[in-house]
Amino acid sequence: MTETTPRLGARVMALIDDLARHTDEPGRLTRLYLSPAHRATAEAVLGLMRDAGLSARIDAAGSVVGRIEGREPGLPALVLGSHIDSVVDAGRYDGPLGVVTGLVVAEEIRARGLVLPFALEVVAFGDEENVRFPTSLSTSKAWAGQYRMEWLEGRDAAGTSLREALTQFGGDPDGIPALARAREAIAGYLEVHIEQGPALEAAVQPVGVVSAIAGLTRARCTVTGEANHAGTVPMGMRRDALAAVAEMALAVERLSEGVAGTVATVGSLTVVPGAVNVIPGQVDFSLDVRAPVEADRHGLFAAIQAACRAIAQRRGVGFASETYMDNAAVALDLGLQAALDRSAQRLGFAPLRLPSGATHDAVAMAAIGPSAMLFVRCRGGISHNPAESITLEDADAATRVLLGTVLDLAGLPQ
Amino acid sequence: MTETTPRLGARVMALIDDLARHTDEPGRLTRLYLSPAHRATAEAVLGLMRDAGLSARIDAAGSVVGRIEGREPGLPALVLGSHIDSVVDAGRYDGPLGVVTGLVVAEEIRARGLVLPFALEVVAFGDEENVRFPTSLSTSKAWAGQYRMEWLEGRDAAGTSLREALTQFGGDPDGIPALARAREAIAGYLEVHIEQGPALEAAVQPVGVVSAIAGLTRARCTVTGEANHAGTVPMGMRRDALAAVAEMALAVERLSEGVAGTVATVGSLTVVPGAVNVIPGQVDFSLDVRAPVEADRHGLFAAIQAACRAIAQRRGVGFASETYMDNAAVALDLGLQAALDRSAQRLGFAPLRLPSGATHDAVAMAAIGPSAMLFVRCRGGISHNPAESITLEDADAATRVLLGTVLDLAGLPQ
Repeated sequence: MTETTPRLGARVMALIDDLARHTDEPGRLTRLYLSPAHRATAEAVLGLMRDAGLSARIDAAGSVVGRIEGREPGLPALVLGSHIDSVVDAGRYDGPLGVVTGLVVAEEIRARGLVLPFALEVVAFGDEENVRFPTSLSTSKAWAGQYRMEWLEGRDAAGTSLREALTQFGGDPDGIPALARAREAIAGYLEVHIEQGPALEAAVQPVGVVSAIAGLTRARCTVTGEANHAGTVPMGMRRDALAAVAEMALAVERLSEGVAGTVATVGSLTVVPGAVNVIPGQVDFSLDVRAPVEADRHGLFAAIQAACRAIAQRRGVGFASETYMDNAAVALDLGLQAALDRSAQRLGFAPLRLPSGATHDAVAMAAIGPSAMLFVRCRGGISHNPAESITLEDADAATRVLLGTVLDLAGLPQ
Repeated sequence: MTETTPRLGARVMALIDDLARHTDEPGRLTRLYLSPAHRATAEAVLGLMRDAGLSARIDAAGSVVGRIEGREPGLPALVLGSHIDSVVDAGRYDGPLGVVTGLVVAEEIRARGLVLPFALEVVAFGDEENVRFPTSLSTSKAWAGQYRMEWLEGRDAAGTSLREALTQFGGDPDGIPALARAREAIAGYLEVHIEQGPALEAAVQPVGVVSAIAGLTRARCTVTGEANHAGTVPMGMRRDALAAVAEMALAVERLSEGVAGTVATVGSLTVVPGAVNVIPGQVDFSLDVRAPVEADRHGLFAAIQAACRAIAQRRGVGFASETYMDNAAVALDLGLQAALDRSAQRLGFAPLRLPSGATHDAVAMAAIGPSAMLFVRCRGGISHNPAESITLEDADAATRVLLGTVLDLAGLPQ
């Protein structure tokens, strides 16, 4: 470490604060895919890339991409980036941190006059949060050749189709298939992202290397008991749907605690009829099960289903479950994980690997090239919230780890 | 038993079916207080009373009351009755059964030319379900001298005040205070009602004598945890409000099972934010505790509160509870209970006493005279539902028990 002030971190924080000015809603940060604020942010990122000497453009799907050629033109690219869209009433770090750290690393490499044995690209994807349209990582999946053209016909809450919104944005729906990158064009993908969880804070570490992105099973569950008068039916003669679901929710908690690295959540729950004086006749609830190891996810989900069925049978209520999402876990590249680890250790940070329970653009990118992620500690593990917060020092640490990793992969001295 | 066909029961069932024609909603039975269907039903009951030779009128609050004088005019009255208003999408027995059995008993006494040592009144109260206006047993409380004149200013969902609706109905808001009956004018009150619970069906008995009307505590409870990403927060680091409430709901169930005759229900529950991918940050739920014995109710409520606080403390979540209803239990008159019991036993039914978890007009009437209730078995314990059902034989049994009780109290042979 040759510097005593966190110069790179200060630059990252200033750029993030600058981008956070672009919002679709006064007073809070909301930047949905293809909105005016998204366009303004994309243009700001485009300008920053060009200022840094990158050859940059906004692609057909609205992603911003800048490139520095390596020793010779057309070499496979090491891609650094993340996304610049946000949820409603968002924080400023979820997404932009990965774009800006990538950009600052590119600035630094340009400033040092370094020539790499690969091309370096910085990308700002546009549709990671999947809030506005019924899509899933559409902009990075366009790169991965996994775009589904029927997504263009999906509509937002106002009735605007993705195709219409993309055209209005200045994109090119018909140009999307051509965005697909060949495997041989991608040397790797590195994404810096806030952890969105409390593990790094608990470990007192600024950064951690993501081992895998958890697989995800989601189901809609319904328990059917018998609605009746809350005053007149003795306890022993009830078939209370909510009491049954209470047992099930505790089983979900207990069973997932038993498998390291897995999480399971009952996040929504609706009682029918839901009146103070009526024994609940039906309860609908959601189940969300995630694990970095596929066998753990399938095993935990099966164990939860079995427990729910047993509880339902014992209580004389009905139990039905419909699985509507079943996304496989994505193992990240071991070589890139090791490179991130080495870089962190050189800077004095303890090695720490952790799974990601959330989905990221790296899931799409992993389909076309070695991909890895670096998580950055965020205060209280809070995200998707204006209270999202990281420190200047941690931003600096993440940028230096990323820079060091690029130099390492390039075979250049630190 | 001098008859082999259930003549009185057949008359009761025919009258109930006839009254069920009057509804505010085509295709289902809805008869809210002071509605056109309520008026039509009141006039039908008035006509039946007059046909039976009762001196009858609709009183200032909309209750229908008919009277047969006893040996001399002005004797205290034994009142038989219940209510003719209903919930939305109701069954036909909840309320009308008590009015019609009273009417049929009065018809029978007139038909037999009997003269009683007390006046006999039949009443059809109009506001027992308390669905339309923010009132509580307003028509029977008018008799009990417990009417609160501010109820007249309460409004229904359409913005109509009770005062306006009562005037339009043909009632007399200013005449309500004069409805209060002196204690010395009431010899007793007997109310036949469907059980609205499964106890008689389980005991294979057509009727049972109500021992007490349960006291009721209602509270709004809130558990405050921490909303966070369902994928990124390890199980051991969560403060899941719903998991805490699941434990609480099971404690409610377990603790109330431990005290005979008590019931406790979590009937409504709302999760905030209530999304599949967010750990619940807050849960609001209702608590409804009922017991025929006051000490049991207070003890159970306190035990539930203590359990919830302990669960909250162990899980690091907040727990708040606001009690907004605290109605004392009403013990019914022992002498009238015994008279109902004797009458049932004479007819060959086993004596059976059971508490009422639901509130009835008898709660108000008990304030001005000895009051008792006879419950009638209903299929599946179902009420407040078009599927509400009793048998012709059980209607006959209830009417004969009521008639026998009146004869018993009059010192007349069966």
